[in-house]
This record gives sequence, C-alpha cells and structure tokens, in this order.
Amino acid sequence: MTIGILMAAGKSTRTNTTIPKQFHKICDRPILLYSLTTFERSQLVDLCLLMVPQEWKTTAEQMVGDFKKVKWVLPGGSTRHETSLIAIDFLRNLKPSLVVFHDAARPFLSLRLLETVIKEAKGFGAATAAIPVTDSVGYCEDGFLSSYASRESLYRIQTPQAFHYEIIDDALRKFQADDGTKPVFLLGKRVKIVEGDPYCFKITTSKDLELAHLLCRFFKEE
Amino acid sequence: MTIGILMAAGKSTRTNTTIPKQFHKICDRPILLYSLTTFERSQLVDLCLLMVPQEWKTTAEQMVGDFKKVKWVLPGGSTRHETSLIAIDFLRNLKPSLVVFHDAARPFLSLRLLETVIKEAKGFGAATAAIPVTDSVGYCEDGFLSSYASRESLYRIQTPQAFHYEIIDDALRKFQADDGTKPVFLLGKRVKIVEGDPYCFKITTSKDLELAHLLCRFFKEE
Repeated sequence: MTIGILMAAGKSTRTNTTIPKQFHKICDRPILLYSLTTFERSQLVDLCLLMVPQEWKTTAEQMVGDFKKVKWVLPGGSTRHETSLIAIDFLRNLKPSLVVFHDAARPFLSLRLLETVIKEAKGFGAATAAIPVTDSVGYCEDGFLSSYASRESLYRIQTPQAFHYEIIDDALRKFQADDGTKPVFLLGKRVKIVEGDPYCFKITTSKDLELAHLLCRFFKEE
Repeated sequence: MTIGILMAAGKSTRTNTTIPKQFHKICDRPILLYSLTTFERSQLVDLCLLMVPQEWKTTAEQMVGDFKKVKWVLPGGSTRHETSLIAIDFLRNLKPSLVVFHDAARPFLSLRLLETVIKEAKGFGAATAAIPVTDSVGYCEDGFLSSYASRESLYRIQTPQAFHYEIIDDALRKFQADDGTKPVFLLGKRVKIVEGDPYCFKITTSKDLELAHLLCRFFKEE
C-alpha cells in the first residue's frame, strides 16, 4: 500500500500573512487542495494523510470532505521533522510499503511527476523531485555577495519525495534535518533524483503567491 | 551616461531547439524584445547595446528597428565572458559612467527591478538582482544525491547586473567567470544584492519556455 502524506502543518512566517499560505485561496480554492487533487487522481496512491496546524484541523476536515482517499487529518509538530515523525508513527499499524511526502505549498503538482517519483522510490528505496540550478549561486552577508558556490550538478530539492516505509522510519528516528531526504542520505541510503519541473515551485514569499495566482487563473481558462 | 547591454549571444544548447531561445517567439514576439522594452521605458537607461550571435546580426537589426535607444547590434563571443569584454571594449570611447547587463533569456524584467539595480550600482559600484533559495539544495552524481549544500543566506544570482564602467572594465580584464558579478567580487569590490523576483527567471529548458508562454499569454490578457 502507498500512502500520500500532504505536509500542510507550516505556519508561513515568510509570506507575511495571517493565515498559513497553504490555506490561502487561489482561484477560489485553498492551495492545499490542488496537490491533494493530484494525489486523488493517481492510481498509484491508495490513501492520504493530511498534516495541518492544530488550530486548522476542523477547517481542514471540512475542506477535504469530498476527497475519497483522504482518510486522516492530523495536527503536525513545530518542525518539518517533527511533523514527518508524527505521520510515520501514525501509519505504523497500517504497514504501508511506500510513503510519498508532498509540500502543500507546491500546488502545481503534475500526475506525471508524482507517479515517476513513486515508481523510482519503489525501485531504489528513496526518490525525490529536484530541478537543476541554472542561475549562478552565491552566499550573501549584510546585503552583499560574500562567496560563490558551484552550480555544477547542483539541484534544488523539491517534493514529492517517496520512500520505502522502513527506510524513512529508521532515518527519521536517527537523524534530524530540514529536508526530508537528508536523514535517508545520512543513513547511507541512496536517494534517486527525478527531474522536477518549474511549475512545482514552493510558495514562500508574497511574490510567489502572486505568481501562483497568475498560473492558476491561466490553467483555469484552458 | 548609463548603457544597457542586452546579452543575447548565447547558442541555447539546453533547450533542444534549433534557433537560440532568445529569438523564440512568445505571444508573437521574440523573447529578447521583452526586456529590451523595459530598457526602452526606463528613464535611467540612455542607450542600449544588443549582443547577438554573428549569424543573427541582420535579423536582430531588423527586429529592433523601432527601438529608439538600441544604437548598436554586435556579434558576441563564444562565452559570456568574451561577449561581456567585447561589449565593454566597444563602449570605451563613449566613456559611460554605468553599464547594466541583462540576460535576454529573462523576458519578464520589471521596470522597478531594473531601476533599483541601477540605483544601487550608482551608490555601491556594483549591484545584482538575486533571489533567496528557499528549496533545500544538494549535489547530484549519476542520478543520485551525493551531498547537500547550506541554503542559509544562499541566493540565485539573476540579472540585471549594473556596474561603474571602470570597475567592470578592470574586473573582466583580470578575472574570468561564468557569472558577471564574480570578476568584480574577485577584484575585491563589493556587489550589492537587490532582491529580484520569481518572474525574472531564465529560460533554459523547454519547460521554462512553456512557463514563459503561459505567463506572457496571461499578461497579454490583463
């Protein structure tokens, strides 16, 4: 069994909004429902677990009433790592073979990308969407460039990220990190890269939110 | 005097297209004309120099016939560094105080961003648009994640990039790099960061080209 875990427990400190960005509406629909719809449409996903902030649990339960695969809505922790652990612990009795995490703040998830990540994780144990960095990259200090990093073979790690259940369970228990693949990497397991796409960007700033508005209005007119 | 230098001399090996991506049309208009229009509209830019591949010179000259500020169309070199040097050498007799480089493959350049970069460069000697990296980042080897980089204070360096003429002239002569700001940094000069925006992305892959199509069709309907 494959379980989709939608990570929507963040508090959105960076978008300067009072409600978490994943609950914002674009085209009259809360952002988190977009990728949940992709999960719902995929024949490779059996059931979904939705992780939300404690105070949004009731609202979220109402929002997903029509989603047949969304079986559980749970309050997350205060960090991404904590939220992942809560989700993994909750699923233990179900014994899923595979779990696939996705950031709710990445609404434009294609079915193709979701399913490619799932297939690669089945074969390799762990897989993530990622996109090559084509800009030069540098570190900044007090508003000025302070050093450069190599962009050769550098990838921005996106989601979805899928794992054999035993691997992610073991990894999250042993290592903490802000990215879901890092504990698995630190455990010594390989993480397969699946080329993501630019639409699958994460809404972080208010500019990103504006871009998401544009895109969704466009897709709607198609 | 401030001269805008539009960098359109690249050969586009990564988009898998036969014509360079900056000459592709989105909404019936070659990509390079979009940012050139922003240059044309800015009261802070006096004249423009357009750098193109040798074999596109005649076509480019016809394209920019209606642009009052575009005074010169020149063939570039085989690398970004070479093209920058050709442009800087060509402008020597004109003695501009400031030059502002922009990648033609970044069509969605706002007037605000262009002018902020110019103003900061006037004050600090060098400035570039850059955008904070919000995804985790890692290096890839043979299709698998091979290490992680810190994303703390990490920026993707975009264009526009503006410089006092003497500084960039000196820097390009002494140091080679694939990014325009790096020679200036290596010269020991400070490069001010101006927060760019996600619209100002560089069209590199065919997916990027598709996203650019969507955005331009949307902006057109506004």
